[in-house]
Amino acid sequence: MADGERMRWWGWGTDAHAIELPPAAGELLAAELGIDPAARAERVELEDVRLPASALGGPARDALAAVAGLDAVDDGHAARVAHAAGRSYPDLLRLRSGALEHAPDAVVTPSSRAQLAPLLAECARHGVAVVPFGGGTSVVGGVEALRGAHRAAIALDLRGLDALVDVDPVSLTATAEAGLLGPELERRLAARGVTLGHFPQSFEHSTVGGWVATRSAGQASSGYGRIDELVEAVAAVTPAGALETLDVPATAAGPALRELVVGSEGVLGVIAEATLRVRPLPSERRYEGWSLPGFAAGAEALRALAQAGALPDVARLSDEDETRLTMALGSTGGVGERIGRGYLSLRGRSGGCLAFTGFEGTRDEVARRRGRAAAILRAHGAVALGQRPGRSWLRGRFAAPYLRDALLDRAVMVDTLETATTWANLQALYAAVGDALRAALRERGTAPAVMCHVSHVYRSGASLYFTFIAAQERGAELDQWRAAKRAATDAIVAAGGTITHHHAVGADHRDWLPAEIGPLGIELLRAAKDRLDPAGIMNPGKLLPG
Amino acid sequence: MADGERMRWWGWGTDAHAIELPPAAGELLAAELGIDPAARAERVELEDVRLPASALGGPARDALAAVAGLDAVDDGHAARVAHAAGRSYPDLLRLRSGALEHAPDAVVTPSSRAQLAPLLAECARHGVAVVPFGGGTSVVGGVEALRGAHRAAIALDLRGLDALVDVDPVSLTATAEAGLLGPELERRLAARGVTLGHFPQSFEHSTVGGWVATRSAGQASSGYGRIDELVEAVAAVTPAGALETLDVPATAAGPALRELVVGSEGVLGVIAEATLRVRPLPSERRYEGWSLPGFAAGAEALRALAQAGALPDVARLSDEDETRLTMALGSTGGVGERIGRGYLSLRGRSGGCLAFTGFEGTRDEVARRRGRAAAILRAHGAVALGQRPGRSWLRGRFAAPYLRDALLDRAVMVDTLETATTWANLQALYAAVGDALRAALRERGTAPAVMCHVSHVYRSGASLYFTFIAAQERGAELDQWRAAKRAATDAIVAAGGTITHHHAVGADHRDWLPAEIGPLGIELLRAAKDRLDPAGIMNPGKLLPG
Repeated sequence: MADGERMRWWGWGTDAHAIELPPAAGELLAAELGIDPAARAERVELEDVRLPASALGGPARDALAAVAGLDAVDDGHAARVAHAAGRSYPDLLRLRSGALEHAPDAVVTPSSRAQLAPLLAECARHGVAVVPFGGGTSVVGGVEALRGAHRAAIALDLRGLDALVDVDPVSLTATAEAGLLGPELERRLAARGVTLGHFPQSFEHSTVGGWVATRSAGQASSGYGRIDELVEAVAAVTPAGALETLDVPATAAGPALRELVVGSEGVLGVIAEATLRVRPLPSERRYEGWSLPGFAAGAEALRALAQAGALPDVARLSDEDETRLTMALGSTGGVGERIGRGYLSLRGRSGGCLAFTGFEGTRDEVARRRGRAAAILRAHGAVALGQRPGRSWLRGRFAAPYLRDALLDRAVMVDTLETATTWANLQALYAAVGDALRAALRERGTAPAVMCHVSHVYRSGASLYFTFIAAQERGAELDQWRAAKRAATDAIVAAGGTITHHHAVGADHRDWLPAEIGPLGIELLRAAKDRLDPAGIMNPGKLLPG
Repeated sequence: MADGERMRWWGWGTDAHAIELPPAAGELLAAELGIDPAARAERVELEDVRLPASALGGPARDALAAVAGLDAVDDGHAARVAHAAGRSYPDLLRLRSGALEHAPDAVVTPSSRAQLAPLLAECARHGVAVVPFGGGTSVVGGVEALRGAHRAAIALDLRGLDALVDVDPVSLTATAEAGLLGPELERRLAARGVTLGHFPQSFEHSTVGGWVATRSAGQASSGYGRIDELVEAVAAVTPAGALETLDVPATAAGPALRELVVGSEGVLGVIAEATLRVRPLPSERRYEGWSLPGFAAGAEALRALAQAGALPDVARLSDEDETRLTMALGSTGGVGERIGRGYLSLRGRSGGCLAFTGFEGTRDEVARRRGRAAAILRAHGAVALGQRPGRSWLRGRFAAPYLRDALLDRAVMVDTLETATTWANLQALYAAVGDALRAALRERGTAPAVMCHVSHVYRSGASLYFTFIAAQERGAELDQWRAAKRAATDAIVAAGGTITHHHAVGADHRDWLPAEIGPLGIELLRAAKDRLDPAGIMNPGKLLPG
């Protein structure tokens, strides 16, 4: 893989796709959030990033190099920095400031699946923690190289496991190694006339293994399914041995061990390969925008779609605040520009909530499904805005993390958090989390903008994805963020939502995991880990509370 | 619950629904399988059933009665016999012969969920094994009361936990206690305008807890989903404490512990309650028969339906042998009579494969879905046989276990086994298992009829359900059955199928579980069990190999 495809060490993606903040954005941030348009937050140069000295001793290093090759063990500064963090807001703060408390003592990049077991064995023998690393896009601290009780920690970079092992066009499955990045996977699948249809916001820089390990959900999950619904079988390499599940559409042979590996976040072993359920490549894609009368009414429309079995592949609904900001900023790849407040007023409606639907498939399928859904939406007060906003959304679907970098340059805090619950509980959860975020940030003197959207829809409920923006509290940026995060997550738990619908637990949510799965649930996961990872080398400090 | 609703102790269901073998059947069995039409196999009277003496000691008995009440602990002969076995072929042989090597030392029937934890605690303290018992319909030995390493074993009859705790009409979920039988659950859901849509063949005598514990699949699973897809949340009581999962449509909070409880077959704890995803009660049901050109061609038609997203709720395809026997016997509730060989010849086709589709929903939904599916079926050579055969199938959908009793009275061995695999592997698996069954039984001098159908269909594959019939080998009935079972299951494993698609592992499949999930998978399940059931009282001898 060309180096150019790896993310820039201090932020998202590549320079070629960087986004400038539109002038209107600066004005809006000043007007609404009191953000000084001249404020800037610097970031250090790569050479000025301070890391702890590498603690990977000679014998350990030699042992790892003996398995993977000398070139595969890299304790250079650039490699260590590039693998020191994911892309959460705290990660970005730490990277930009150049003060990294934790970093892998070396980066080890196996070239084949066969090297995984001996590498784990050597790490267990030499007391080296292992942090599986795909694209490094975790937004919950999942790839931070914590040593735990061990002398050192390595980032195990899986980019070398990038084979598309098999495509079965009859059964519509494809077996892919864990290190395959999203775009490369889809390119190779497209060459065989199929698609996985899994497009998380991190798609351009995340991997099959990362998706499976975090139980992710793509933007089109309402149609294609979440990753756990797309995994037909999985193969993991654990310190205790191989764990491989049968390639079968369904089975009653006991509890589903596949579902123990999916979402195991690197704490049980390394996901090596997954057999995924694919679909024929769609020949047609129809994306369009809608205006719904309000957030609750819009949610009811989505509920009606889901419970009629008429869900689009993509179904998104912004609340009033997110709609207003989208219109004002033209932030989501220019959607606001395309729609414009004028257009909505023209349609006889001001305010309201912006929604997007996307249908993919053959021309007939798309027409049929879209027709059914449109009738249901209109029955719930939806006004069609046409396909131009939809295409705009599509074009900008992976752009938000670049926008975040631009905002951080302006000393603006911006982060997201997400949850899900049943339809009956949705509005209560929505209100509780929004209130908690606003209160926590106002309390710190940094009044926020808080917005929310639904983007994963089910018969029994939906996800809620919150974005919060505020002026950074200079000198207390992490404390500011922690206060907001803690208040919101406490509110989620109190309101009965899940602490994470698709971002995973990582380090950032683990304190709340006992509330979600109970003390015995925690013990059960520990029991599994003790059996599969007796030396406790796999991704210390993640998933399970300390 | 009235006693009349419990199954007769030596066979299936109730006398009121018993089936006489049609005369044509006797002739066919004689002609094809050399079965003497005058042969009879007797069964003993209830009072002549020989059980081991109850080994439940006084202190243990008193402790259990102190929790659940004196009336709730029954070591009488009738209760012990009624809970001594499931309804597998070996179970029926043993019951009919009156020689029960194993039986619960007592039957304990809690009246509320709150009694479960103290009952398990007393059992652990007194060294008493616990066999959770719902309807007692296991066909894999799952409810046989094996003491394992303990002094005694009780059947824990869950009929007293029969509350429909809640119906959420907004989120379309319903929370039901584990002891609710299928028909009662559906009656109460119907009163609220909803349905679970889960109709395994055992429906009339099986329970919510039993379905969840065995990861079952109903006849309409191709539309409504298998039980694991219908479980939104589950609550289990284990010896180590309560394990309850959050009521949420989807979550990324780590591995799915819900999927560890589903399919746990009573070896981790007692399922107390499940929150299930329900659908609006359908106002229309359209069931019809089809003739497909052959089994492979028919499977291709089902694959096309699945991969077009056009699956019916019920989709079944019989192979040539099952079609022929169905026609000849009129066995499946009279379907054969309704269709008749004449009718098929009239349609210009002799031989061929019988298929059924069922659609449920609103009138528009049914019309729309049926129209799509019919076009696809016709494109694959299907000829419509009309709705009469479909309605006949519906009427007889739960009848087969009664027919089995009638055949056993005639000294005929009849059993079923089931598997699943990907489409690419389906015909190879079908051939391998059929060949193994025929060879094993011919070798014993009892040439069999072997038939097969597909009844659960997925985008990536399908299930295969085999029925085998032969004259019983008098005096060696169990050996005969074991030989067939072993040959077929070995063939399944060798051909890459799952050892069970929906019957579960129980006692009968556990020797093959290591081949399916690997030695580390077994170790992982043991680790979970050791943590949740440290005294090992939960359902000894099931799921995990000895």
